Amino acid sequence: MSPRARPRASEADALPATLDPLPATLEWHNGRVRLLDQRALPARVRFLDCASVDALIDAIRSLAVRGAPALGAAGAYGVALAARTYATRRQVRAAAGRIAAARPTAVNLAGGVAVALTAYEAGGAADALAAADELAREDVARNRAIGANGVALVPAGARVLTHCNTGAFACVGYGTALGVIRAAAEAGRAPRVWVDETRPLLQGARLTMFELERLRIPATLIADGAAASLMAAREVELVVVGADRIAANGDVANKVGTYALAVLARHHGIPFYVAAPTSTVDLATPNGAAIRIEERDADEVRTIGGRAIAPAGCAVRNPAFDVTPARLVTAIITEAGVARRPYTRSLPSHVRKAVSGRS
Amino acid sequence: MSPRARPRASEADALPATLDPLPATLEWHNGRVRLLDQRALPARVRFLDCASVDALIDAIRSLAVRGAPALGAAGAYGVALAARTYATRRQVRAAAGRIAAARPTAVNLAGGVAVALTAYEAGGAADALAAADELAREDVARNRAIGANGVALVPAGARVLTHCNTGAFACVGYGTALGVIRAAAEAGRAPRVWVDETRPLLQGARLTMFELERLRIPATLIADGAAASLMAAREVELVVVGADRIAANGDVANKVGTYALAVLARHHGIPFYVAAPTSTVDLATPNGAAIRIEERDADEVRTIGGRAIAPAGCAVRNPAFDVTPARLVTAIITEAGVARRPYTRSLPSHVRKAVSGRS
Repeated sequence: MSPRARPRASEADALPATLDPLPATLEWHNGRVRLLDQRALPARVRFLDCASVDALIDAIRSLAVRGAPALGAAGAYGVALAARTYATRRQVRAAAGRIAAARPTAVNLAGGVAVALTAYEAGGAADALAAADELAREDVARNRAIGANGVALVPAGARVLTHCNTGAFACVGYGTALGVIRAAAEAGRAPRVWVDETRPLLQGARLTMFELERLRIPATLIADGAAASLMAAREVELVVVGADRIAANGDVANKVGTYALAVLARHHGIPFYVAAPTSTVDLATPNGAAIRIEERDADEVRTIGGRAIAPAGCAVRNPAFDVTPARLVTAIITEAGVARRPYTRSLPSHVRKAVSGRS
Repeated sequence: MSPRARPRASEADALPATLDPLPATLEWHNGRVRLLDQRALPARVRFLDCASVDALIDAIRSLAVRGAPALGAAGAYGVALAARTYATRRQVRAAAGRIAAARPTAVNLAGGVAVALTAYEAGGAADALAAADELAREDVARNRAIGANGVALVPAGARVLTHCNTGAFACVGYGTALGVIRAAAEAGRAPRVWVDETRPLLQGARLTMFELERLRIPATLIADGAAASLMAAREVELVVVGADRIAANGDVANKVGTYALAVLARHHGIPFYVAAPTSTVDLATPNGAAIRIEERDADEVRTIGGRAIAPAGCAVRNPAFDVTPARLVTAIITEAGVARRPYTRSLPSHVRKAVSGRS
């Protein structure tokens, strides 16, 4: 094809291909909430258009969309959807309550619902949607700020261990813990990443490896049980993970398996960082013991992709998250900076700074 | 069917059903090595008759038979098979070398090969088979002794965490670490078991859960990453695992993920026991750094049951084992008793005691 015959590029086509090589996690599209269906990855990049509140709740429960920041935006867009769907204020409030309760651990879900519901109560459906759009825009900006704040903690050439998925797919875009790694790569620090596969739902293998491959950041997949021996062999310079809820004292609820990494990092003298927006900090929760940990279906452990890997009907314990005590957390990286102990002092300061920065 | 019409029971049928509800792991059968094909469990109980040395080596490499004690017997029967197959002493020796090298970490494989090869060199094919049969008989007796020696370490009603499979299927029969749990159950101590699924090859989910269900010992399956939070919640009284090789200083090579459990147990003040026959103690290896750790195929991590769970061709680190330093091991339970630190003193004593007990 000659240059002259080339069709005129749309605005999207004109963007440099390197700007964001990842499909959008979620967006408002023709009056529906369009989600990247993360259950289908890495085999297929497929989108799910949620036209009803129930469809969205089902998508949240079944982890088509997941990750604390992404759940915040999904909750906000869910209220926008409810405001278009239902005739009465009472129905919208009830729907908002159901969305907020779809998953209990990530505080962002209820937070996103509250932001959009407040806007709806003040102004109506259009305001709910505007609030959701703003939250989504802010998410990406916040994550870039988290990344920028974390870069100094990543030495040049560092081998970084991470768990679960905390990248663009856990957010509206860019990522939290993976955002720190991405920012370090963009700053020329050439990090190399060890990716825990993260059983039972394999978000590390399926999503983080997919993102890092698209971002051309060198990454190596490991079984969760292999992290300890890599630390013992001095092949890990730091650990960075995300968070689903951070209590006022700095205790961190995150994907099950995180707490083991924190203990192992301490044992080996390796820094253990948490990267999360201040919207994940829940100052109303005093400590980790007060965080409700979601127990998920036994078949997530008994089967993989529908295939049984254990005797049918066997007993299973399947907590989706665990709690890492604040004393094992070297620092918490937020959009407001790098919080250090005592977190009872630094976290409220980060939250205040973030709120004043937004308003 | 009336009692009179009942067909006459064979000897096997006449055994009380409670004696051993598990299929045999391996046995000599019509001039072949018959293996329980552990790749097919828990879906199917299927046997594999190895008529050639190459078929046996393939079965060992692909983990149709696995577990340090079982590999010892497989190695010995492999030499018996070689002695029937090949015409010259040189060919038999070469075949023995190939069998011993099929997997590098478990010392028992080379040990079993050496026992049968010595018998063959002294007397011929029949002697090799007799030596293998004796090793197999001794295996079960040794494991029962390990179990009896370990019972006192299991408090009544204890919740015991274990990793991988160390039961009858890892041995000729009964089990090592799982043998301790089984002996505790037989002694009325009513242990309850947390079973790590043990990625990548899921021996905990597939094999240990199968064995414990058949033995009617209460067991609950968990993802490997969930062990730490159970310890934090004080739901684990002790950890007991097996070993693939124990160095002279007490460092223990075992299934990847074991070392993390040892660090976590220490962090939570929980005893961490290793149960293994003295044939797994390798006094010629001074410490864990001298143990060769097998790196297995990347697709064991990238796929499960042939289904891709990560981007095709992504980089993987897949060590089959890790090394737990002796200082994290509370005690090593062998057929000769309970070895404590300093292991440089207690382990040689156990080995001497076991050898003199056999002769």
